[in-house]
Amino acid sequence: MGMHARIDAAIEAAIATGQGRTAPARLSSALHYACTPGGARIRPTILMSVAMACGDDQPKLSDAAAAALELIHCASLVHDDLPCFDDADLRRGKPSVHRAFSQPLAVLAGDSLIIQSFGILAAAAPAAPDRALGLIEILSRQTGMPHGICAGQGWESESDIDLSAYHLSKTGALFIAATQMGAVAAGQEAEPWFELGARIGEAFQVADDLRDALCDEAELGKPAGQDDLHGRPNAVAQLGLNGAVSRLNDILSGAIASIPACPGEAQLAQMVRMYAEKLVPAEVLAKARA
Amino acid sequence: MGMHARIDAAIEAAIATGQGRTAPARLSSALHYACTPGGARIRPTILMSVAMACGDDQPKLSDAAAAALELIHCASLVHDDLPCFDDADLRRGKPSVHRAFSQPLAVLAGDSLIIQSFGILAAAAPAAPDRALGLIEILSRQTGMPHGICAGQGWESESDIDLSAYHLSKTGALFIAATQMGAVAAGQEAEPWFELGARIGEAFQVADDLRDALCDEAELGKPAGQDDLHGRPNAVAQLGLNGAVSRLNDILSGAIASIPACPGEAQLAQMVRMYAEKLVPAEVLAKARA
Repeated sequence: MGMHARIDAAIEAAIATGQGRTAPARLSSALHYACTPGGARIRPTILMSVAMACGDDQPKLSDAAAAALELIHCASLVHDDLPCFDDADLRRGKPSVHRAFSQPLAVLAGDSLIIQSFGILAAAAPAAPDRALGLIEILSRQTGMPHGICAGQGWESESDIDLSAYHLSKTGALFIAATQMGAVAAGQEAEPWFELGARIGEAFQVADDLRDALCDEAELGKPAGQDDLHGRPNAVAQLGLNGAVSRLNDILSGAIASIPACPGEAQLAQMVRMYAEKLVPAEVLAKARA
Repeated sequence: MGMHARIDAAIEAAIATGQGRTAPARLSSALHYACTPGGARIRPTILMSVAMACGDDQPKLSDAAAAALELIHCASLVHDDLPCFDDADLRRGKPSVHRAFSQPLAVLAGDSLIIQSFGILAAAAPAAPDRALGLIEILSRQTGMPHGICAGQGWESESDIDLSAYHLSKTGALFIAATQMGAVAAGQEAEPWFELGARIGEAFQVADDLRDALCDEAELGKPAGQDDLHGRPNAVAQLGLNGAVSRLNDILSGAIASIPACPGEAQLAQMVRMYAEKLVPAEVLAKARA
């Protein structure tokens, strides 16, 4: 099974842990709807790539970690799309969960997916309890308060924003979770993998700003120009289009340089390069140069 | 330190894990606001009572379990109060979180508290990793889908409600979590403690229906008559006031009879009796008999 099929299978299995014949049917459907069809599955792909670069000696734990991370990411998208946040009608080219189901079911689907993330990590523990607990601790730290993605969203309710804390928690946190959880699932220490995750997160933020500025709604699968519309701080406004593109390249070089020594170091560098092309496709970059 | 002071200290410490100088200040405040001042802290009190009846040989784990359960309970109240659910302006006699802060901060506070619950269990693990993983698994099962409190809320979006599944998950789940987590924190099996939790949950549901029918807003600290208003199924509508009172007494006798053999069995039975009096105070029962 290739890596993507493996990740998809793990995600499907993780969603199914929240479903069942004796569960409320609409909420069961909303769980699946919220997580499929996947986007690029970037976070679990990074996680799995790191786990494989470190030997992947407990594949069930890597699977659970990848699925847990994607479920909680999807949960955050469902809640971010709610009318009280982005009020987004579309996500990945189809109606957002609260539009397709209802606001109560969107709140509950997000809550359930968060909870399932931790449940599947605990259920995958028997082979390696200490690693499972490490994964739960990282996932909690990078998603909750004071420094996870909840904190990132929370900064948007402050009149005085700490910009570096905002970006690190809003976008960086789940990439830090990806690299650290991949390492821990394979029995390595988390700490040396912080920088790779943080730099990929930074790259993602700049790339997202570029796409938001350069793509239309059909290309994005969600409304375009949202940063400008909501007056959000962004790299294109700060550095201009070309400045943002060079910043992106600098960050990616730094990311590759930060990869800790491990058996699969070279493949991992290759993965970051391929991933950079996915982040901002050549035809979008061409618009920046135009 | 008495049990209640111990529980309060554990909850304060758990809330503080989500705060910090470098976190968004309003969301930090909302976390504390959502969990204090406490209600009766019924769920952590039951959890701690069971842990103590079973020997409480890992007090830090019992503390973390009690706090985790209360945080996730508070999270569910914050989300239940949102305009898309109960649209409640008041909770425990003060403005609900979305009224005091904002809807985005209420969604985020709930999400953060859910995540912190799992984080503090993982952080308390070193002394007994297997117990901590057991606690995480129970907490996940009793709060998420398909059978936890999220499922309970999810039933309210179905046209065809499975009433016993609805009550077991909506109200019973956190009491089952309380008895099972108390036992597991003290090194016992979870399964024998299911029935005590389920019966206490049933009693709580009937008592809540009685209070909703008999008390006014000032006595409840939240709007009264909500069951009638929203056409929710409830014991008073089904059995009448006196029928509901006898049902409550039957359930409590069953709860006491179900207590598994353990060193503190007698004290635990005493706790259930005291707790029954707290659930529906004598002066409220007098109204039912009037």
